[in-house]
Amino acid sequence: MISVAVNGYGTIGKRVADAILKQPDMRLVGVAKTSPNYEAFIAHRKGIKIYVPQQSIKKFEEAGIPVAGTIEDLVKASDIVVDTTPNGVGAQYKPIYQQFQRNAIFQGGEKAEVADISFSALCNYDEALGKKYIRVVSCNTTALLRTICTINKVTKVEKVRATIVRRAADQKEVKKGPINSLVPDPATVPSHHAKDVNSVIKNLDIVTMAVIAPTTLMHMHFINITLKDKVEKKDVLSVLENTPRIVLISSKYDAEATAELVEVARDLKRERNDIPEVMVFDDSVYVKDNEVMLMYAVHQESIVVPENVDAIRASTRLMSAEDSIRITNESLGILKGYLI
Amino acid sequence: MISVAVNGYGTIGKRVADAILKQPDMRLVGVAKTSPNYEAFIAHRKGIKIYVPQQSIKKFEEAGIPVAGTIEDLVKASDIVVDTTPNGVGAQYKPIYQQFQRNAIFQGGEKAEVADISFSALCNYDEALGKKYIRVVSCNTTALLRTICTINKVTKVEKVRATIVRRAADQKEVKKGPINSLVPDPATVPSHHAKDVNSVIKNLDIVTMAVIAPTTLMHMHFINITLKDKVEKKDVLSVLENTPRIVLISSKYDAEATAELVEVARDLKRERNDIPEVMVFDDSVYVKDNEVMLMYAVHQESIVVPENVDAIRASTRLMSAEDSIRITNESLGILKGYLI
Repeated sequence: MISVAVNGYGTIGKRVADAILKQPDMRLVGVAKTSPNYEAFIAHRKGIKIYVPQQSIKKFEEAGIPVAGTIEDLVKASDIVVDTTPNGVGAQYKPIYQQFQRNAIFQGGEKAEVADISFSALCNYDEALGKKYIRVVSCNTTALLRTICTINKVTKVEKVRATIVRRAADQKEVKKGPINSLVPDPATVPSHHAKDVNSVIKNLDIVTMAVIAPTTLMHMHFINITLKDKVEKKDVLSVLENTPRIVLISSKYDAEATAELVEVARDLKRERNDIPEVMVFDDSVYVKDNEVMLMYAVHQESIVVPENVDAIRASTRLMSAEDSIRITNESLGILKGYLI
Repeated sequence: MISVAVNGYGTIGKRVADAILKQPDMRLVGVAKTSPNYEAFIAHRKGIKIYVPQQSIKKFEEAGIPVAGTIEDLVKASDIVVDTTPNGVGAQYKPIYQQFQRNAIFQGGEKAEVADISFSALCNYDEALGKKYIRVVSCNTTALLRTICTINKVTKVEKVRATIVRRAADQKEVKKGPINSLVPDPATVPSHHAKDVNSVIKNLDIVTMAVIAPTTLMHMHFINITLKDKVEKKDVLSVLENTPRIVLISSKYDAEATAELVEVARDLKRERNDIPEVMVFDDSVYVKDNEVMLMYAVHQESIVVPENVDAIRASTRLMSAEDSIRITNESLGILKGYLI
């Protein structure tokens, strides 16, 4: 039984904490939180122990949330820390993890250099075995890597050109924009996503372009993959259908907009309407000789959650990729094949 | 002096009418309008003659807008009609244009078969000379064609892969969505834009993917062009900089979001903040051997306006492509080079 701390309890942290509570081989020691907001109250109501920075103890106690200890106490009491603090803050916490000689999982908002390896469960679990510091790549890069490593099972992926349409903010974020604009992100080519993919698959010829759109629900990717050999559409569909963490949505259901996909998740009564799978539009899969094009949607809030769980097992050498991915998927209800 | 009728006075029609009023070789006979809304009142105040369907005469007169005649009267009084009626309605009017033996310019919302030729001034003006029915392709296709035909001047374009992020509605449209969703348009590959490009450049290997985003200001394109030969970035930039109807925006101005581009147009005091040029982000131009990638923004309300003016001259054999494009650009203030 591995004792896990979650440092940061926002969009990713609360989902990772919930996921750890469902793992047969893990124990959630507690979570670290810096402000006593609604998320802290709900965590407390769920019985999760809350650790806070020394200077925030009074603020939490005044708010009526009992404090289990400081963040240092949380780190000491755990075998491994999942750092889900905001972009760039993880690097500031790393010295504390080092001080107490604890392994740590960082998120994609940190620079690759923060960790010994950047991680995508379907691509390089084995390389991450025993690594003290693992960085789970960002939501968009996770989706790109899952898709590329999956198509690579049909025949070797030689070149990737992709356009990423990013959601502007998560649903809960009320201070971010844009309200009515497309924002190139950046207005240079390539976007950082290509470099981030290369942090896992070295030497892949990949160029990405990215733009932010005024929506909160999901990202979408438009991807063009050049393969070593000609392939058949049915073989591409078959590998997509048979890979866990990728689901297909059939055009016959008339659920193509991201708003409709989220409504499907609500109707399926998924927790927080999360969709941790890459959602591929089956009718978008287009094959022309050795080129594959397809469109998929990416639920930015949840896609990296299973990767974090697997990264814990890889870092602590708990089990093989196959076993970890299977247990994570079963415990979290993550599917393969057609969503409905 | 060519007498021009504009049938339809919405987003495109009112701009085409204004453009015709500025041409030294054209006379605006009047415009046809079906409902006495604010656009009709403003047209009347500007002294534009308004023609309406027989059954709408009473409605206009009751609203206080004098009626110059029926739509048939308008067609009869003109040498050529620019049909800017809603998508698919142009085909319904074609029999009237035929009955009075008038040439007509249709918009990209009509099927290609409505006309003798689909048209993009920078690509195929000469082929359109003397054609009785010309279809100006849609805003997105116009932008694709301008860009492709321009890059083709550096070295032959062999393959195009593009992602089109469409605005959801024009600013004035209050009944369209989405409010908060990305909507694949369609969720199949290719989108119709590729076929539409092929209506002008036959046999080009082009595949497009398209998605609608909740914004009203501009479209954006993310394009990957494979060329016959290796090229230098400076040669690509040079041809873009020296082609009319394409403008570059420098990254140094920190105006990259479509909302910022429209603000630039407002500050430059452009009429209706129109940007009929393709707006290329100069820093996005990325060259890798024989591949060119770039991003540009497309002002859907105005980009086809100069093409309509040129199509009138091509159809009536008024003058050469070079002369027509020059006079259209000068009269409408359409630029090349850096916008600021």
